[in-house]
Amino acid sequence: MPEFNAPLRDMRFVLNELFDAPALWSRLPDLTQQIDAETADAILEEAAKITSSLVAPLNRSGDEEGVHWQDGKVTTPAGFREAYATYIEGGWVGLSGNPRFGGLGAPKMLAVLFEEMLYGANCSFALYSALSSGACLAIDAHASSDLKERYLPPMYEGRWAGSMCLTEAHAGTDLGLIRTRAELQADGSYRITGSKIFITGGEQDLTENIIHLVLARLPDAPAGPKGISLFLVPKIQVTDDGSLGAANSLSCGSIEHKMGIKASATCVMNFDGATGWLIGESNRGLAAMFTMMNYERLSIGIQGLGCAEASYQNARTYAQERLQSRSAKGPVAKAQIADPIIVHGDVRRMLLTMKAMTEGGRAFACYVAQQLDLAKFATDLDERQKAESLVALLTPVAKAFFTDIGLESCIHGQQVFGGHGYIREWGQEQLVRDTRIAQIYEGTNGIQALDLLGRKVLGNGGAALNVFAGDIRDYANSGVAPYASHVLPALERLVNVSRWLQVQAAVDPNVISSSCVEYLHLFGYVSYAYLWARMAEVADTKLAEDEKFYGAKRATADFFFARLLPRVESLDACIRSGSASLYALEADQF
Amino acid sequence: MPEFNAPLRDMRFVLNELFDAPALWSRLPDLTQQIDAETADAILEEAAKITSSLVAPLNRSGDEEGVHWQDGKVTTPAGFREAYATYIEGGWVGLSGNPRFGGLGAPKMLAVLFEEMLYGANCSFALYSALSSGACLAIDAHASSDLKERYLPPMYEGRWAGSMCLTEAHAGTDLGLIRTRAELQADGSYRITGSKIFITGGEQDLTENIIHLVLARLPDAPAGPKGISLFLVPKIQVTDDGSLGAANSLSCGSIEHKMGIKASATCVMNFDGATGWLIGESNRGLAAMFTMMNYERLSIGIQGLGCAEASYQNARTYAQERLQSRSAKGPVAKAQIADPIIVHGDVRRMLLTMKAMTEGGRAFACYVAQQLDLAKFATDLDERQKAESLVALLTPVAKAFFTDIGLESCIHGQQVFGGHGYIREWGQEQLVRDTRIAQIYEGTNGIQALDLLGRKVLGNGGAALNVFAGDIRDYANSGVAPYASHVLPALERLVNVSRWLQVQAAVDPNVISSSCVEYLHLFGYVSYAYLWARMAEVADTKLAEDEKFYGAKRATADFFFARLLPRVESLDACIRSGSASLYALEADQF
Repeated sequence: MPEFNAPLRDMRFVLNELFDAPALWSRLPDLTQQIDAETADAILEEAAKITSSLVAPLNRSGDEEGVHWQDGKVTTPAGFREAYATYIEGGWVGLSGNPRFGGLGAPKMLAVLFEEMLYGANCSFALYSALSSGACLAIDAHASSDLKERYLPPMYEGRWAGSMCLTEAHAGTDLGLIRTRAELQADGSYRITGSKIFITGGEQDLTENIIHLVLARLPDAPAGPKGISLFLVPKIQVTDDGSLGAANSLSCGSIEHKMGIKASATCVMNFDGATGWLIGESNRGLAAMFTMMNYERLSIGIQGLGCAEASYQNARTYAQERLQSRSAKGPVAKAQIADPIIVHGDVRRMLLTMKAMTEGGRAFACYVAQQLDLAKFATDLDERQKAESLVALLTPVAKAFFTDIGLESCIHGQQVFGGHGYIREWGQEQLVRDTRIAQIYEGTNGIQALDLLGRKVLGNGGAALNVFAGDIRDYANSGVAPYASHVLPALERLVNVSRWLQVQAAVDPNVISSSCVEYLHLFGYVSYAYLWARMAEVADTKLAEDEKFYGAKRATADFFFARLLPRVESLDACIRSGSASLYALEADQF
Repeated sequence: MPEFNAPLRDMRFVLNELFDAPALWSRLPDLTQQIDAETADAILEEAAKITSSLVAPLNRSGDEEGVHWQDGKVTTPAGFREAYATYIEGGWVGLSGNPRFGGLGAPKMLAVLFEEMLYGANCSFALYSALSSGACLAIDAHASSDLKERYLPPMYEGRWAGSMCLTEAHAGTDLGLIRTRAELQADGSYRITGSKIFITGGEQDLTENIIHLVLARLPDAPAGPKGISLFLVPKIQVTDDGSLGAANSLSCGSIEHKMGIKASATCVMNFDGATGWLIGESNRGLAAMFTMMNYERLSIGIQGLGCAEASYQNARTYAQERLQSRSAKGPVAKAQIADPIIVHGDVRRMLLTMKAMTEGGRAFACYVAQQLDLAKFATDLDERQKAESLVALLTPVAKAFFTDIGLESCIHGQQVFGGHGYIREWGQEQLVRDTRIAQIYEGTNGIQALDLLGRKVLGNGGAALNVFAGDIRDYANSGVAPYASHVLPALERLVNVSRWLQVQAAVDPNVISSSCVEYLHLFGYVSYAYLWARMAEVADTKLAEDEKFYGAKRATADFFFARLLPRVESLDACIRSGSASLYALEADQF
């Protein structure tokens, strides 16, 4: 049976040694009251405990049993209810929630590490609360204070969950097409009617109530995305004193049978004149929903990271123990029938690819979280705006790159096991199946790439990219950075191809969608190169303290620069081939 | 529900227009009696019919139901028995079998196209006969004439199946470690005792008998791979008149629960003093088994190709029909709520990647098959030896590159479907799960890469590579080849890095296992570039005949050169970074 143990040593390295988060917290007034180094460390310890001992043991059994649906009721797999009850007692759902409504107010830099553990332990379990956290964020940012006071406290507690009702059968990526209707009632509420699909946790048996955030159209709304409003629609209606009232007119019509995340209920939700409440302004629902979507996009990115870490842990153990063939340089384990397979170059290549990409990803997730914390808590307006611009730029990279690389890593981790990787009991194939969805939902990775290149880079004439590139150049030219020679050429490659794309896009509208996925990957490798340079530098200065850990960090950086960063060469060449070769065929010539 | 239709138009293009196989057949005396253009085409037609109407409809249901095991008996999913009975009536199992024993003697160039259809229609179903064909080949090449006469006819008929019993729990890649024992009996038979795992079709309910080819050790055998012998061990003993006698002392202990190919029984086989017969010389069993393994390696490569073709067909249809968002150049389907997603650059990128790699792979499979036919049937010794050397060189490339690219293609095909790609009923996720095993079994793709670089390229000082490179150069320098400018630089890159590796390997034994997977991929792209250049040239000359088909072929070649061939740049850079960055960590630093 696979085990999962949170990579606490590396998480502490990233949080404290790479980013010195406690120093940041102490200079931000709103955070300094909520968190310090000691509290943060205690939270990480506790999170590691709960994910490894409570949540991870339900991962395989949840996959085998799956979720049940009968007559509109969803039953989660054995053990989920009890575990969820214990889990919410720890206050984890409200970890980074607004303290005014019962949240713990922890910084995002800490929350992303917790999320990684949770996804690494059990993706299906993690999803039940991931949607709640995002829904809370949107309610906190856009809803009336009455709605906030009524809904946020039980949601932060985890007694009530959230869901995100966007997709309809004919409207997935293209939300402008949705048909669900909302009609104003005399009491100021709305009646919501329509059918939504692919609703994660739309129905379950873990919480007393489920608060659906639903996109719908008012009768007089303009067509397309500018005619969409956001509504809060509870499964059970909430009375004025906050207690539960009558059931709302909505139901779960069925659940999907999926490749993975089988313990997570993916629901068809039918709203049949259900009572709902407007969140934010009418016809501005998509913008309000983006508060939740951006949260979920980073979270789903971290799903890729968590699965990759879990896969790496299993593969490492297997490679250290499985005996097969001898080292090319002659026997290593002479007393054994063969050497552990970790002596073989190709096994090391797979393990190091996983290790370098997961540790690089962890650093990147924390870096994005640092910008989120600055955007929320910095007292200086310039600092806040700069951070906001970095968050907007880097969120699609995190979502898509973490999950594309997450799948690659899980496939490597499965391959290390040979035939056993294909057998269910070892857990490696489940990680491949579970992580695969993360490239698809919350906006496919192609959509993330379009958002990055079209809106976040070219849409502002490269201004946001310049901010990011400026930070990297400042670091690399600071005089100490010993790894700058790896980072700067890769960065200039990114900047140059961005300029080339800006010129091309002016004459060829197809070039953006034709090149965006390769562009996002190029962006990801450059970002990781920047963070690996910083990590290697920290490791250099501390090598004498712990040669095993810091030496491994240094060596992993070298591997990244030697074996993974060269991928940018081909990506660059592909981008520069433009869109012509993609549009030479008519649709019926495929 | 997904459908599968054999890509007959493209198969005819490859067989007749690209390679002019009928001309080859007519000059090889042993083939000219068996096959001509008309017969070949009729076989392809019939194969297309049987795979689309008989085999493909059982693919989804077989995956849902899976194989059952109870008390040693295996039951295949509903419909498999009936379909298998109809299938063998067509003589497909013996398609390329030896006519002396009832095989049809068809050329491999035809057989690979049939195999692609069969895997594309239903991987699990295909595996039941794939092992039979390989077992027949090994028996025909190495067994006594008595064994051949007794076993081959019912195996070619498909009434009896074959299996391949190599792996033991502690011995997968490292077959030198196997422990199964064989003891000589007074009547010249052997008693076989031991346990084998991962035996595809080790037990099933489709055939009257199963003929296991089992690797085992004689009592006095030297340790390691040079002490292994090969035995023929029937499930039911065969009497002197060829009829079935008593059950042999062997049983299926259990079946594996797997990620995919769920309708294929993967068995633990226990041999309990079972009666067997030596095939070939004692202690030379591994060499004899390699006759079967090399057959199966190409076959399993084609599994990757077949799955990719099936995934492409589904994705193409979906992309032509699914309406979502508008083209970047403005509405295309103005009367519809949105444009079909095939207007979007990123969807085209995924479809064209699948199309270019599948059509390139189909041509490469036929090219390898052409060499197999020449190695078997050419009357000229030089021609035969040259073909043998190409087969040895290209078999690991076909196995690993087809399946690595097969997975990439199936993932693209799933991604085109968005959320629906993750839902079981659409079939795309099954293709990902089914094709994934092909990178693992029959020697993992890492092992194929080691074989290619260590044995097939460096092991003969580059002689075999020079034969292949010579053919490509002859073609490219022939004066007509209009696409030579794409092929030659890629080829010289491969040749140069091969020389570099030869020098490195002399001083660094680790460099081979450290670079072999990237090397194999580089080799694959160069091979496809060669074949795409030849295909584009044919298409150029015939453009006026059928602009839709040949224009698409030309455009797909352009896409391959512009967007996929540049991947060689990064692969080259990775290889040249050597092994140092992989060996800087101790095993316990992972």
